[in-house]
Amino acid sequence: MYSVTSAVHPFTPHFSKSVAAWGEEKLIAAIQRWLGSVSPRTPFGIGDDCAVLPAASGRQLLTVDPVIYGRHFDDSVPPRAVGAKLLKRNLSDLAAMGGRPQAAVLALTLDAQVSCSWLEEFYRGLAACARRYQVSVVGGDLAQAKGIVAASLTLLGRPAGKRVLTRTGARQGDWIYVTGLLGDSVRSGHHFTFTPRLAEGAWLARQAEVRAMMDVSDGLAKDLHALTPPGVAPALDATLIPRRAQATLAAALGEGEDYELLFALRRQADQAAFARAWHKAFPRTRLTCIGQFVSAGKIPPAAVDLTAFHGYEHLRDKRRRKPTAAS
Amino acid sequence: MYSVTSAVHPFTPHFSKSVAAWGEEKLIAAIQRWLGSVSPRTPFGIGDDCAVLPAASGRQLLTVDPVIYGRHFDDSVPPRAVGAKLLKRNLSDLAAMGGRPQAAVLALTLDAQVSCSWLEEFYRGLAACARRYQVSVVGGDLAQAKGIVAASLTLLGRPAGKRVLTRTGARQGDWIYVTGLLGDSVRSGHHFTFTPRLAEGAWLARQAEVRAMMDVSDGLAKDLHALTPPGVAPALDATLIPRRAQATLAAALGEGEDYELLFALRRQADQAAFARAWHKAFPRTRLTCIGQFVSAGKIPPAAVDLTAFHGYEHLRDKRRRKPTAAS
Repeated sequence: MYSVTSAVHPFTPHFSKSVAAWGEEKLIAAIQRWLGSVSPRTPFGIGDDCAVLPAASGRQLLTVDPVIYGRHFDDSVPPRAVGAKLLKRNLSDLAAMGGRPQAAVLALTLDAQVSCSWLEEFYRGLAACARRYQVSVVGGDLAQAKGIVAASLTLLGRPAGKRVLTRTGARQGDWIYVTGLLGDSVRSGHHFTFTPRLAEGAWLARQAEVRAMMDVSDGLAKDLHALTPPGVAPALDATLIPRRAQATLAAALGEGEDYELLFALRRQADQAAFARAWHKAFPRTRLTCIGQFVSAGKIPPAAVDLTAFHGYEHLRDKRRRKPTAAS
Repeated sequence: MYSVTSAVHPFTPHFSKSVAAWGEEKLIAAIQRWLGSVSPRTPFGIGDDCAVLPAASGRQLLTVDPVIYGRHFDDSVPPRAVGAKLLKRNLSDLAAMGGRPQAAVLALTLDAQVSCSWLEEFYRGLAACARRYQVSVVGGDLAQAKGIVAASLTLLGRPAGKRVLTRTGARQGDWIYVTGLLGDSVRSGHHFTFTPRLAEGAWLARQAEVRAMMDVSDGLAKDLHALTPPGVAPALDATLIPRRAQATLAAALGEGEDYELLFALRRQADQAAFARAWHKAFPRTRLTCIGQFVSAGKIPPAAVDLTAFHGYEHLRDKRRRKPTAAS
């Protein structure tokens, strides 16, 4: 369980403590100071019209994800954890393709009454996380808008090995695996304390028997759909789905913010040997086979009815959600 | 002057016409359709955890800029122009370093009541601009937040030639030049009808006599500060500053959203020969020498007093702005 004693409200009623009192120039200088060693010198970092990235070759990976006050965090999340969560959400996307991070830029949209101390903690949390995962924060933008605390981070990375693992490639008969535990992410604090599965993702991309991969962020029931090829359906065993202590099956399937890896293992694979190799590489990361891709017409009656668990859909109004009983 | 007949309000009172009625999956499919040829197939575009960028080598340029409803656009700006402006703001940053564009990702934050037709026009405008400048829109994120219509675009580019031109490098005696006209950008519609100076920026980066460059986006008075080396000050001739028809000197110096190039030409350069070469390359783009960098203690009395014109400073509360008369 997560303790909320260090929570800080992003807004201040005192003008002198607000970002508006500091103004853009002073704020940008402070941001560079808070980022410290993860902020390279100009022109490789903050301070010019663009950041210059040193010459390198090979394919790249690019992803973008935000954190928005009231949606991805609230007053119960310490600002350091908000900054770290912003980067970790993007690292999880990179992990899902077998990537390693390189550089990030950050677009910040703030109400004039956001407190400088909240912002400092946010950046210090981001910086600590960036140091840990060797990400340079090379640029950003600062904009003002009423009532908003939002940050959008774009992450640039490279394949950790030779292979980039995509969502496409699973076939009928393939085994479905998931890392870690699912459900109850928001209440337990997992949604910001999680560790992005970068090492695991890089390892999985090196295994030829792993055919397709993604991260679970909107709930297993919804996300698994993207891994499922045409004519095929996932047959999951409800008793196998790894749930966090207080999570119901519905929470594990539909709540989202799990940031775990979901992948398909070739049906001919030696599952026992694969499990042994995994546990040798990652003795502390749980791995569970939760089912198999079967022919769409041949779902066993005992399999989980995924249509009953919708998963988190952005921009979907509750008025239009199907009631669980009717679906 | 710009006609507002085609303006569209981003919000709709009709649920059936809102993004909430469509939901995320249908919206993402529609976005890919609206983007058309500028949206590469997965895994090189929208549809996986990250976008894969094909192998290439050399330095890269990275920049991020948003458009936010109520700040960078209002109901008087047609949604197609909003989409184009988002990309063009970033292209202007790239132009300022002598870059050419490559790929972009877009983070969108929308109120559930944003109308699908507004969003379609926004994306079609973005797509038309991306086609024109050969930018691939390779990924994005869609988030919901109350009362917001905001989009943040991250642009990845490469140097157009061998040289990347930064803000650093001007010296005492160097001539100060600016492209186009300044001021009155919002009222005249220039803030969204402008053409990013990509060709001009690439050409200027090839000229060894050009020492430093940036784009003018927050107003000349503020931006010029970033081009000015220590111990030196810009001495501008007020009569030379190229103003849009109805722009006052204060507007030309302080309003911002000009998206023109500002650069320093080596003091030993043959200005007449430079002007001839420019007009041969860009017969339709105005170029003006507006002054010179002088020793900080030797500003001629007739030079423009730039401290009187603050320029647009983000997150600076009006209560703390110095009144013009006192500065």
